[in-house]
Amino acid sequence: MPVTLNTADPDFERGFAAMLSAKREDAADVGQAVAAIIADVRARGDAALVELTNRFDRNDLSADGLRFSAADIDAACAQVPAEDRAALELAAARIRAYHDRQLPQDAEWTDETGATLGWRWTPVSAAGLYVPGGQASYPSSVLMNAIPARAAGVERLAVCVPTPGGEINPLVLLACRIAGVDEIWRIGGAQAIAALAYGTESIRPVDKITGPGNAYVAAAKRQVFGRVGIDSIAGPSEVLIIAAGAQNPDWLALDLLAQAEHDADAQAILITPDQALAQAVAAAVERILPTLPRAAIAGASWRDHGTIILTRDLSEAAALSDRIAPEHLELCVDDPQALAAQVRHAGAIFLGAWTPEAAGDYVSGPNHVLPTARSARFSSGLSVMDFVKRSTVSQLSPGALSAIGPAAVRLALSEGLSAHARSIEARLETLNRGS
Amino acid sequence: MPVTLNTADPDFERGFAAMLSAKREDAADVGQAVAAIIADVRARGDAALVELTNRFDRNDLSADGLRFSAADIDAACAQVPAEDRAALELAAARIRAYHDRQLPQDAEWTDETGATLGWRWTPVSAAGLYVPGGQASYPSSVLMNAIPARAAGVERLAVCVPTPGGEINPLVLLACRIAGVDEIWRIGGAQAIAALAYGTESIRPVDKITGPGNAYVAAAKRQVFGRVGIDSIAGPSEVLIIAAGAQNPDWLALDLLAQAEHDADAQAILITPDQALAQAVAAAVERILPTLPRAAIAGASWRDHGTIILTRDLSEAAALSDRIAPEHLELCVDDPQALAAQVRHAGAIFLGAWTPEAAGDYVSGPNHVLPTARSARFSSGLSVMDFVKRSTVSQLSPGALSAIGPAAVRLALSEGLSAHARSIEARLETLNRGS
Repeated sequence: MPVTLNTADPDFERGFAAMLSAKREDAADVGQAVAAIIADVRARGDAALVELTNRFDRNDLSADGLRFSAADIDAACAQVPAEDRAALELAAARIRAYHDRQLPQDAEWTDETGATLGWRWTPVSAAGLYVPGGQASYPSSVLMNAIPARAAGVERLAVCVPTPGGEINPLVLLACRIAGVDEIWRIGGAQAIAALAYGTESIRPVDKITGPGNAYVAAAKRQVFGRVGIDSIAGPSEVLIIAAGAQNPDWLALDLLAQAEHDADAQAILITPDQALAQAVAAAVERILPTLPRAAIAGASWRDHGTIILTRDLSEAAALSDRIAPEHLELCVDDPQALAAQVRHAGAIFLGAWTPEAAGDYVSGPNHVLPTARSARFSSGLSVMDFVKRSTVSQLSPGALSAIGPAAVRLALSEGLSAHARSIEARLETLNRGS
Repeated sequence: MPVTLNTADPDFERGFAAMLSAKREDAADVGQAVAAIIADVRARGDAALVELTNRFDRNDLSADGLRFSAADIDAACAQVPAEDRAALELAAARIRAYHDRQLPQDAEWTDETGATLGWRWTPVSAAGLYVPGGQASYPSSVLMNAIPARAAGVERLAVCVPTPGGEINPLVLLACRIAGVDEIWRIGGAQAIAALAYGTESIRPVDKITGPGNAYVAAAKRQVFGRVGIDSIAGPSEVLIIAAGAQNPDWLALDLLAQAEHDADAQAILITPDQALAQAVAAAVERILPTLPRAAIAGASWRDHGTIILTRDLSEAAALSDRIAPEHLELCVDDPQALAAQVRHAGAIFLGAWTPEAAGDYVSGPNHVLPTARSARFSSGLSVMDFVKRSTVSQLSPGALSAIGPAAVRLALSEGLSAHARSIEARLETLNRGS
């Protein structure tokens, strides 16, 4: 049974705070092991990749087998059933349509002093995408990472995916092809992140690395941050459902379980002012849980992290949701738009009972790479913005420099930076001599 | 004398690669010391802050002296000369006007299936700004960090600034007041970052931390990343000037020296196809250098990191600039707009000889917190975007779920996530029964 809290209880705050601060993930300290792997790849390049892949993935690659050939990819794609291919293509088209709208606009204007100001956006040149191997090798994640990069205009897109024992999910390779990935490498773990960041004889370095991974991958991304850009470090996934009114308890239970089946560390939370609904959903979870192929995982998640919170009303539910800042927020209420207007911190918001979060995981269009572990307080899901960067642009006329230069001189001198001041003064003197 | 390279030389690539890979900063490995400081602040709160400030800043604060009072700030602001105040106010107004234009737009649309999709931007609730103490305590940096946060709509803005021996630059406090900072704390180093990230009895935690600092501050920001958002880790500053045509060598020399005077690790680079101009600028640097109060710093930077590159033409100069991805790029050429169109990777671009970089440091309007150490390949300067985050929004109609749900079911099953599939199927069954 999950924890049940009630905001009317006198010690609600204590229970809620305990839930908020509970650590769902046992982050092994793999920093030193990862630093050694990165140093090895930097020092020995491809030879290190071959050796590490042999050791960690029990996969005997020579250096020229590091990369999937076009023929490898063709053969894998040919295995994919037509219905799976069609589903991937529908998903890709919808994700592309959504992300194409995110391309930011350049700006330029001239102000009252004659200064022309603005900014320009340009794509990152090369991006690397990490795709986990084995059970968590999700073709949908390939689409969600690669398509925003392509929409941004990234020229070169390299994927690293471990192939433990030589195994690869053909749908992953097909997703790479549909999304327009340029290179696919049979490498995983920290060594893949090192290769993408620093390059080897075979793999040219990239400028930005995205994609989920295990503790080694996460630690490696943290260590190469600065050398390259990275996306956020993903933690265990979570859903928060706010429900009220005439809801189908089975739908809500399935939505909670869809989150719970990801991972024993995943978290599913129901907040409702309706005690009868809470009980019906809890009962539906218990009834459905044993019927799931992943019952063990989903059951552990629901038992250890599942939470039901009873509130006085929906406004209180929205306020609690903001304190949790959930990755996924479902609003299964009569007027979801009105409730959404009260919410400030959430990675993705799903409005109404016909919008199960699982649809958003695959085909709705918005990205499913979202801020976890309360980081929706300060960060956003993956988007085109992760693959572009902005250059500010300024051009002062002589008149603009006359108007604003003296203030800059004053501030530079107050900061003890006299060459800054003189670089402006030299120009102002020329202007003054001219007038 | 700085290094001079010539793209026509056969071993140019070797020299250029050496310059690109040269490490300008000796990043001390302070990770363990910083981890201990963070753990201490988490465990003991204000008491740890008082003790660490005593030790590192030789400053004896009691817990209730951690924060500058309104009277402290009033007294400091009253000391600031009127001209300095006017210069700060002009700078603040221009920075605000520029950043107000960066506020991103929400979006919502309904597609052909009946799915309503979009996104909403909301501000981070609370931000913390680190301001270094001593020589590098720049009031201009206060404006450049605090104003974008305010423009974004951040509700609570806390500044931490060390006051070694009790010293504070009154202009820093005035800049905080002008920018609308809510709280100013007399705390520096890793302990300040820990307090902002985790909170203490006195200091409520924030959601995002920005601002430059020494190796301890940088390491602390890296360690708390995830718990809170951070801006990029700043490295030594750099300028690249591309010059050609009738240019004033003294102006270019002063612009190079303005960069060099920041720090012995700073880098100033001149790229030009005009050998005579290169020689004239180099001579002007040598002539002006001894006249600077910060000649020792600027001289060390120019000697150790200064670089002049002779190219065949301006297109080659632009291509080299992209490989360097400079923080600041000055285009002192006859048609700077045309040259700018060839540039892809630069933090800030300054067009034409009347736009010295120093004006941009203070009063032009764009932000002076910019990506260093080649990170303009993948990141942008500080902006309003650093203080907002996006929630994606989706609402499917029953018809939209009918149209796209089956593809999601297919993909969920291919990924072995049956509760995902069933959460959609349960709804589709209801629809099918209804029809």
